[in-house]
Amino acid sequence: MLENVSKTGGHIASNLGVVELTLALHKVFNTPKDKIVWDVGHQTYVHKILTGRKSQFGTLRKLNGLAGFPKVSESCYDCFNTGHSSTSISAALGMAKARDLKKENYSVIAVIGDGALTGGMAFEALNNAGQSSTDLIVILNDNEMSINKNVGSLSRYLSKIRTEPIYFKVKRDLDIILNKTSLGKSAARLLKRAKGTIKYILTPGIIFEELGFKYLGPIDGHNIAELIDVLERARNSKGPVLVHVCTQKGKGYFFAEKSPDEYHGIAPFEIETGEVKKQSGPSYSEVFGKELSKLAHDNEDIVAITAAMLQGTGLSDFSITYPERFFDVGIAEQHAVTFAAGLASNGLKPVVAIYSSFLQRAYDQILHDVVLQNLHVVFGIDRAGVTGEDGETHQGIYDICYLRHMPGMTILAPIDYNELRCMLKFALFDYAGPIAIRYPRGTGKENILECININGKNVDIEFGKGLIAKEGKDITIIGLGNMFSVALEIANELEKDGLSVDLINPRFVKPLDKELILSSAIKTGRIVTIEDGVIIGGFGSSILELLNESLLNSIKVKIFGFPDEPIPHGSRESLFKKYAMDEESLTEQIKKFLEIDKK
Amino acid sequence: MLENVSKTGGHIASNLGVVELTLALHKVFNTPKDKIVWDVGHQTYVHKILTGRKSQFGTLRKLNGLAGFPKVSESCYDCFNTGHSSTSISAALGMAKARDLKKENYSVIAVIGDGALTGGMAFEALNNAGQSSTDLIVILNDNEMSINKNVGSLSRYLSKIRTEPIYFKVKRDLDIILNKTSLGKSAARLLKRAKGTIKYILTPGIIFEELGFKYLGPIDGHNIAELIDVLERARNSKGPVLVHVCTQKGKGYFFAEKSPDEYHGIAPFEIETGEVKKQSGPSYSEVFGKELSKLAHDNEDIVAITAAMLQGTGLSDFSITYPERFFDVGIAEQHAVTFAAGLASNGLKPVVAIYSSFLQRAYDQILHDVVLQNLHVVFGIDRAGVTGEDGETHQGIYDICYLRHMPGMTILAPIDYNELRCMLKFALFDYAGPIAIRYPRGTGKENILECININGKNVDIEFGKGLIAKEGKDITIIGLGNMFSVALEIANELEKDGLSVDLINPRFVKPLDKELILSSAIKTGRIVTIEDGVIIGGFGSSILELLNESLLNSIKVKIFGFPDEPIPHGSRESLFKKYAMDEESLTEQIKKFLEIDKK
Repeated sequence: MLENVSKTGGHIASNLGVVELTLALHKVFNTPKDKIVWDVGHQTYVHKILTGRKSQFGTLRKLNGLAGFPKVSESCYDCFNTGHSSTSISAALGMAKARDLKKENYSVIAVIGDGALTGGMAFEALNNAGQSSTDLIVILNDNEMSINKNVGSLSRYLSKIRTEPIYFKVKRDLDIILNKTSLGKSAARLLKRAKGTIKYILTPGIIFEELGFKYLGPIDGHNIAELIDVLERARNSKGPVLVHVCTQKGKGYFFAEKSPDEYHGIAPFEIETGEVKKQSGPSYSEVFGKELSKLAHDNEDIVAITAAMLQGTGLSDFSITYPERFFDVGIAEQHAVTFAAGLASNGLKPVVAIYSSFLQRAYDQILHDVVLQNLHVVFGIDRAGVTGEDGETHQGIYDICYLRHMPGMTILAPIDYNELRCMLKFALFDYAGPIAIRYPRGTGKENILECININGKNVDIEFGKGLIAKEGKDITIIGLGNMFSVALEIANELEKDGLSVDLINPRFVKPLDKELILSSAIKTGRIVTIEDGVIIGGFGSSILELLNESLLNSIKVKIFGFPDEPIPHGSRESLFKKYAMDEESLTEQIKKFLEIDKK
Repeated sequence: MLENVSKTGGHIASNLGVVELTLALHKVFNTPKDKIVWDVGHQTYVHKILTGRKSQFGTLRKLNGLAGFPKVSESCYDCFNTGHSSTSISAALGMAKARDLKKENYSVIAVIGDGALTGGMAFEALNNAGQSSTDLIVILNDNEMSINKNVGSLSRYLSKIRTEPIYFKVKRDLDIILNKTSLGKSAARLLKRAKGTIKYILTPGIIFEELGFKYLGPIDGHNIAELIDVLERARNSKGPVLVHVCTQKGKGYFFAEKSPDEYHGIAPFEIETGEVKKQSGPSYSEVFGKELSKLAHDNEDIVAITAAMLQGTGLSDFSITYPERFFDVGIAEQHAVTFAAGLASNGLKPVVAIYSSFLQRAYDQILHDVVLQNLHVVFGIDRAGVTGEDGETHQGIYDICYLRHMPGMTILAPIDYNELRCMLKFALFDYAGPIAIRYPRGTGKENILECININGKNVDIEFGKGLIAKEGKDITIIGLGNMFSVALEIANELEKDGLSVDLINPRFVKPLDKELILSSAIKTGRIVTIEDGVIIGGFGSSILELLNESLLNSIKVKIFGFPDEPIPHGSRESLFKKYAMDEESLTEQIKKFLEIDKK
C-alpha cells in the first residue's frame, strides 16, 4: 500500500490506521454477504487489496483505474458508494431494514470515524437506529482526527473514555462494594436497589447507551486478537451495537504517524524521506488564506470559519495569528454556515471557507439563514470545478447551479491570484450581502492581464462589472474564472486564423455585466462561454437567460462545460481531455461553431 | 391569540404551549439587548404580542401583514429569522461569539423544541458550543412532539428523564449512603473516591453534561415561578447552559390539547367547537398517500419514508396499514434520504415524501447518495411551488433549480390528481433510477384532460414524453404541473381573440420531450412557459438550453415564474396576483409578447 500510494498519491494515513481493523472485519464477517459501509470511504485501500483488487492497485485514482473510494460498479465487495462524510449509518440502517423486511440474514456494518461522527446526519442516524431493534453494527474508528485534530465536545468526551481510568475505576470499585457484606443493612438495601442503574450508568459509552446502542469498547484497534473478539461479540449481539475502536492514523509509517494531517490526502512522495514532490508556487487556497490574514490585520471584525478543512483552505496562518477569530467547527458544514450567519447578524464579517462539493451540505443554510436574511457572509468556495483524483463525489462542479437561483446571491470567479485578492477585498469591504468567490483546486497564475500587457494596471472590482480583455468582431468568448486563461490561449489561436475575438472576463457569475455582454454579443453575433462546471443551469445558461430577456435570442451561443453525467476520477488534465474541455479540443469545436450558419 | 388565530389560521398548538415560557423569558431577560433566537419560529405569537405587535395581530400571515415567523425586518425584538428547524443554536452561538469578540455584555438564548433537536445541525451546534466557554443559554422546550409525536432514541431519553424517578432516587440514595458512617473503611474510601464522578454521572441530563453543557431541569414549563427561577439561574451561569423545560402543546385550549397534531398548523376554525372550515375535496398530498397505499398493497417492496411530516404528506393511512414498511425518521431530512438510498441499494422501492422547502436540507444527500449511485428512490415533493402564508422560508420554489442539474435525475410534475397517480405508478414500476414528482400544496382537479374532452382516455406516462393538449399555430404555451390549468384558461382566452395555441403539458421537467417541444416551437415560432417556481435556472431556462443546443435560438421565448427575490407570506392567490402570475395578468402579458416583433 505504502509503495503504491507513494507513487499515485492518495489517503495514506487513514488507511495505515485501519490495517488491523480491516483484516479483523474480513476475518469475522463474510463479505459480500455481510455488508460493510465505509464512511467517507478513502480508508478502503486495505479492503480493496483484500477483495481482489491487489493487482489493479497501481492504477489507483487514475482515469479508468481503481477509485480512491468504494464503488459498487467496481466490486461486489463495495456495497455502497461513499465520499462525503457521515452517511454510513443512515445507509447501513436502510440496508439492515431492507434485510429484515425481506427476511434475509446477514450482518450490516457501518465503519465511521470520530471526525465523521460529528456531522449532524450521523447523529440523525444514531437517533433513528437507536430506537429500533434492528441488528446493526456501528464501528467507531476513533483516531482523534478528521483531517486535523478533531474538535467539539463529543471528541472531548471520547478522549475522556479513552484516557480517564476513573470510569473503569469507579465501576470496579462499586463492584467490590456491592459484593461486600460489611455494609450496614439499610445502605446495602439502597445500594442493591441502585445497583442495576449504577452499573448501567457507569458504562463508558453512556451517550451511546442512552441513544439506544449497546456499547462495546474502547478496544485497541491495532490488536487483531482483541478486535476479532469484540467483532464476534458484536456480530452475535441483538439490536444496534456500537464498537469503539481506538486507532492511530498513519500507524506503522514514521512520517505519517508524526504528521497524520500532512499524510491525510497526499501527493506522490518518497518513502525513505517522506518528502512530497513540491507543487510549483502557492495554490489558490494559500493565496486566499494569506490575503485574508493580511486584511484581518487591519480589521478586527473579520473572522474565519471552516469545517475541518484548515490547511486545505489555506487558513493555517490565520488560525495561528488570530486564534480567537478563527473557528474550525469540525465536519459540520450546516452549522458552519448558520454559525456564520449568527456572527454576521451581530456585526462581524465572517468568511466561510469550504470546498465546493462539501458546501453542498449547507445548501439549505446558505439559502435559509444567509441569503433570505441578506446577511453579509463571504463564502470562499475552494476546489470549485473539476478536482480530479477523488472522483465524482468530490468534483466541485455544481456550485454555480446551486447558488445562482438564490435571491440576491452574488457569485464571483477570479481568473488569477491578483483578482482573487481583489475580489476578497471587494467582498469584505465594498459589499454587504451574501457573496461567494469560487476558485479551483491547485495552482494558478499571479496576474494574467498584466503578463499579456492588455491592462498593465489593476482594474478594481466593481459590483456586477466584467472586463474586456481583447476586442474583436467575429466572436465573443467568455472565459469564466480559471477557464479565462484557456479562453485567452484559444483567442490567440483563432487570431492566427485571421479571426478577431472579443474576449471577456466576466468576473461576476451573478449579477452578470449585462451591458458589457450584450454590447459584445450585438457586435459579434456569437458567444462562446467556457466554465469549469456543469452545463445545465450554469453560467452559460445564465447568458441564455440574459439574451432571452433582452430579446436577443438570435445571437448564437455555444456553451462549454461538463455534461449531465457523474464525472469520474482521474487527473484534472485527463478529465478535461476526456470531456473535450482542453484547449485543443475547445479550439476545434469553436472553429466548427463559427462555421455553422455562417451567412 | 386564540381568537385571532381561529380567524387567520396559524400555528396555534405550539404557541399555546409556550405562553408561560415566553412570559418568563421576557420577565427575566432584557430584550432586545438580550437576544432570543426562536427555533423554527412559528411559536412566536406570544412573543410578538408582548413586543408591540398586538394591534397588528389580526393581519397575521396575510400579505403585508404580520409574519407567522420571526422577522428582523418587522421588529428589533426579532434578532434572527427562522422557519426551518434546528438552526437556533448555531445562530445563537454565532451571536454569542460576536458579542464576546466585541466585548459586549448580554445574554443570548436559543429556544429549541425537542423535535428540532433531532435535526443533525442542532447536534453539530451543541458539539461546537459545548466545547467553548461561551455564555450561551439553550432552552429545550420539550413537548414530546414535532408536528407529530416525536420519534428517535433522544426523544425516548428525554421521556425517561421526565418520567423515571429512578434517576433521582438513585442520586438521593447514594447521597444518603455517602453521608453514612456505617460503611466499612475500605468501602467508604472507595466510595469517597468515586463520589464526584457518581454524582456527576447521575445528573438527569447526562448527555448534555457530557456534551459540555450545564444541565438545569427538568422544569414544569407552565409554572411561571419555577421558570423565572431557573431562567435567572441560567442567566447567572457561566458557559453553555441547557434548560430543560417540559411543556404541553395546545395547553389551555381543550381541542388543541386533545389533538395537538391537528392544531399544529391549522386553517381558520370555530373556537367553541374546534371545527375547521373543511377544504373542498382531497388535497394533492391525500391523493398521493392514498395511491401509494393502494400500490403498496400488491407490492411488498414499496416502503415510505418521511421526516416528521406524516399527515402533511398524506401518509397516515400508509403508516397504519403498513407500519413495518413506514418510517418516520423525525426532523432529519438528510438521514431520511440516505436511509432511503440504503433501502434502495438493498432491493426495496423507497418513496420519500418531504415538502419542497424542507427537502433543500438534503440537497447533498440526494446528489451524493441517490443520484451519483443512480439508485431507484422516488421523491414525492409535496408543497412544491408557492405555498403562501408561511412565507419566504417555506416557499417551495427552488426544487426544479436544485434538482435539474443533478446527473440522471428525472423530474415530473402532474397537472391533476389523475396524472399524479399515473406518475407515481410510473416512477415505481416503469423506471429504475432517481425520480422526483413535484406537486403543490392544497387541492387540484381530478382530471383536467377528461373534463375538457380533449383526450377522453388516460395517456400512459412514457419516459421523457409530454402531451399536446390543444393544437394551434400562433403560439406554444407550456404549462408545467399545476400551472397547466392556468395555461389552459389562457389558451381559451386567446382563442377568443382568434389566436390558435399549441398547448403542451410537458409532464417531464427533465428529461424534456425534445421532439414534441421543438416541433411545436418550429411550427409557432414562439414559446411561453409557465411554472410555479423561480425563473433563474428553472424549467423555462431548460427550454432555452434545449433551443440553444438545437440551434433554434431564433424562437422567441417568454418565461413566467417567480422573480429573483424572497417571496413573502400571504395567501397563494394574493402572491400569484402580486407577481403577475394569475390568469388575467399572464394573459395580458402573453398578448404583449405576441405583439413583439410580429413580422
